[in-house]
Amino acid sequence: MQSDLKYFFYPSSVAIIGASEDPLKIGGLVFRNVISGYKGKVFPINPKHNMLNGYKVYRSILDVPDEVDLAIVVIPAAGVLSAIEEACKKKVKASIIITSGFAETGEQGRKLQEQVIARAKSCGMRVIGPNSFGIVSTAVDLNATFGVGIRRKGSTAFISQSGAIADGTFDWFQDEGIGFSILVNLGNRGDVNEAEIIGFLKEDETTNTIGIYLEGLPNGLGREFLKAVEETISEKPIVVLKSGRSSSGARGAMSHTGSLAGSYNIYKTAIQQHHAFVVESMQDLIDYIRALSMQKNRTTNSEIRGIGILSNSGGLGILAADEAEKVGFNVPMLPQNVIDEIRKIIPPYGAPYNPIDVTAQGTPKQQYEFYSKTFKVLEEHNVVDGYVVIIEGSFPRETVEAITDAIINEIVPITKKPIVVNWYAAKSIIEDLAKKIENEKVPVYPTPERAIHGLQALINYSLARKKAQIKALISQ
Amino acid sequence: MQSDLKYFFYPSSVAIIGASEDPLKIGGLVFRNVISGYKGKVFPINPKHNMLNGYKVYRSILDVPDEVDLAIVVIPAAGVLSAIEEACKKKVKASIIITSGFAETGEQGRKLQEQVIARAKSCGMRVIGPNSFGIVSTAVDLNATFGVGIRRKGSTAFISQSGAIADGTFDWFQDEGIGFSILVNLGNRGDVNEAEIIGFLKEDETTNTIGIYLEGLPNGLGREFLKAVEETISEKPIVVLKSGRSSSGARGAMSHTGSLAGSYNIYKTAIQQHHAFVVESMQDLIDYIRALSMQKNRTTNSEIRGIGILSNSGGLGILAADEAEKVGFNVPMLPQNVIDEIRKIIPPYGAPYNPIDVTAQGTPKQQYEFYSKTFKVLEEHNVVDGYVVIIEGSFPRETVEAITDAIINEIVPITKKPIVVNWYAAKSIIEDLAKKIENEKVPVYPTPERAIHGLQALINYSLARKKAQIKALISQ
Repeated sequence: MQSDLKYFFYPSSVAIIGASEDPLKIGGLVFRNVISGYKGKVFPINPKHNMLNGYKVYRSILDVPDEVDLAIVVIPAAGVLSAIEEACKKKVKASIIITSGFAETGEQGRKLQEQVIARAKSCGMRVIGPNSFGIVSTAVDLNATFGVGIRRKGSTAFISQSGAIADGTFDWFQDEGIGFSILVNLGNRGDVNEAEIIGFLKEDETTNTIGIYLEGLPNGLGREFLKAVEETISEKPIVVLKSGRSSSGARGAMSHTGSLAGSYNIYKTAIQQHHAFVVESMQDLIDYIRALSMQKNRTTNSEIRGIGILSNSGGLGILAADEAEKVGFNVPMLPQNVIDEIRKIIPPYGAPYNPIDVTAQGTPKQQYEFYSKTFKVLEEHNVVDGYVVIIEGSFPRETVEAITDAIINEIVPITKKPIVVNWYAAKSIIEDLAKKIENEKVPVYPTPERAIHGLQALINYSLARKKAQIKALISQ
Repeated sequence: MQSDLKYFFYPSSVAIIGASEDPLKIGGLVFRNVISGYKGKVFPINPKHNMLNGYKVYRSILDVPDEVDLAIVVIPAAGVLSAIEEACKKKVKASIIITSGFAETGEQGRKLQEQVIARAKSCGMRVIGPNSFGIVSTAVDLNATFGVGIRRKGSTAFISQSGAIADGTFDWFQDEGIGFSILVNLGNRGDVNEAEIIGFLKEDETTNTIGIYLEGLPNGLGREFLKAVEETISEKPIVVLKSGRSSSGARGAMSHTGSLAGSYNIYKTAIQQHHAFVVESMQDLIDYIRALSMQKNRTTNSEIRGIGILSNSGGLGILAADEAEKVGFNVPMLPQNVIDEIRKIIPPYGAPYNPIDVTAQGTPKQQYEFYSKTFKVLEEHNVVDGYVVIIEGSFPRETVEAITDAIINEIVPITKKPIVVNWYAAKSIIEDLAKKIENEKVPVYPTPERAIHGLQALINYSLARKKAQIKALISQ
């Protein structure tokens, strides 16, 4: 990793300029978050203290006897310029300015921000912020934010133009079983911008999927952003939630981050042309990321976009089929020879077409075989590009355990195509079994429609990646 | 309640024809479910047993020394006609035939079904089924199904054309905090149909909201169904999830319940013209019902469909605004005098327009006041028809507790308009506080878009009910 951004996410030492013991102050929250996990050297800077939580406190960063890779600035705005001045002298590599009171407050703040950034640039120090919520890098257990803590590590990176959405998404996604590699809020985007972060994440080994919350990009950054997307997409999927699509939303974006939301259609078309996903809800954001972070390397074999639906409930299979066609998939009628083979496996009142209804009848052992043998026939005949396996119910326990085993032992291992599960039941009752399935890197959704959205992300990413790779080859 | 359907849902005594001790047989599951809660008299019928779980078992229903309101039939199809014969002689009021092997299996089964229903009709006995998953009536703790148990009572009734979807929805919704009054699957719809059930639910005192999963209605039933919807809607909202909308879905519906799915647009238009909701996903079904079951009596004061968005996160407010306009609401810019008043309450870098961003800054006490005072201004000026209150984060605990208190003490009590909450955070951390809010009958959603869908249901129901009431007055 040659990028100078590595000092933000993989620093060997961190100074917190404005570290405090007060848990109600940002300087206290950030300090507490950093020392809660980070194993590198930590240097709290604060002229009012000698010791904080067992750490020696320095009056100035210049007093630190060691090298400092990353400075986190949490002192009031008035002191930031001289803090950056000192950080430059100390040859700090990168700094995150969490302090607010800059360009977001008006003309005076904008000027102060320009001075701060100019000073940092003059000494080659990169800056995230000012007015940033901070960053998280779970590979080094670094939580340099004033928000919630790291509870789950993973491979999803999230870039949020809103600090609160960075915080809430980190909190909610972790709770939903999605671990993060990196979280970043760029604040006023004084120096480092989204395009550079995407470029960094492309090379970052802990990241395999990238989510972005975007309100708007300033003039000039659009092209750079799209270029970064294009260069990254053949290796890592990118999902963008762009807000400010409506007139009232655009008004909100202007007063929130000073963003000109711009024409949503222009954003959407441009981003999609570069093969990233554009979603329009938090639910789709998490549903897409759940699938992509588990199965980005599964591939489809055609552009038919045909999907196979295998269910123990006729009704849920129909709902999945309806949603699949709604979002542009086909749910092809199976060829007669495939139907004949499936008919021999499932009960006579089942449906061997597509959606396939194996029925909920039979012993656990029979259910195991209905699912596994039917799936084997589908896969062997290579008639679809991806699968939704649906389970209804949490009961009898022996039966749902048998279906779980069938999925893990005889379904997931025999296909390289995208595959998702909808388990329609009380989550609290089947949670342990759903986790077993997700441990095999198959996402489990509570409704058939959301499972289809996950599969949509996987199949479309597989096709988009191919296109991006071809484009890259041609332009070489 | 004069309807003869009351014997299905409020019986004084129940006979289970085919009760068994085997928990893997339907006769064992149904018997276990009935005796697990039901307080009326229970008479297991089975010539092979004398006692089951401490209950005296009768050889025939004719041997039961007491009156029998409801017979649940779980013996094989071949014996059902004579069982109904005997039930007639016993003057049983109603029977649920869970046994399958009738019209769903072909011509022979269809004829047997006709004979069974004709016999029941000849003695005035109503029949649900055959091939029914059964019914649940939580007011009398009756679970006459072979599915999962009653874990939560409530006011939502659900009619499902799919047994598995009845089971899974009962399981999932209860887990998500939505309690049921009545659950019913009509199986082959030999006698009792959806229209009659809707008519019954209209009068049922424990039911306040009705959900329906529908694959298709046979010729002739459509008009009756719509009439029942129309007569019910001014008192109780109805949400319909109609499947078989796509070509593959329609194929599935035909092989699943023999339903001609029909033109979705015709169904949708007809149902909407009668002021019921038509949704296209399980997620919307639960999100609509969550809101309607809590707030069906809240009313809006105009047809402007303007909503107010109050958030501590600018980004989440923007996402809510985008979704609101997408589904046909307005998020009106506030009048200057209202803006001026709000500006005095919130921090200078907040947004007093709409969406309103009160910011996440300040002490818990300040946050309490940002939310409560801003809301008071909005409500006093009567500038919108409904509200979304948004909370980002689970931390600091004191702050989110203060916001919860503000909502419960100073927001919910002062308005009669529809109001929903989006809490964007780790559910596991804020669950107790979200429950406190839901105890005040305000639904809490995990994403801004889903909160908007809940509010959409409430505002649209308020307007639809008014129209239905006017229509009823005119036609009197």
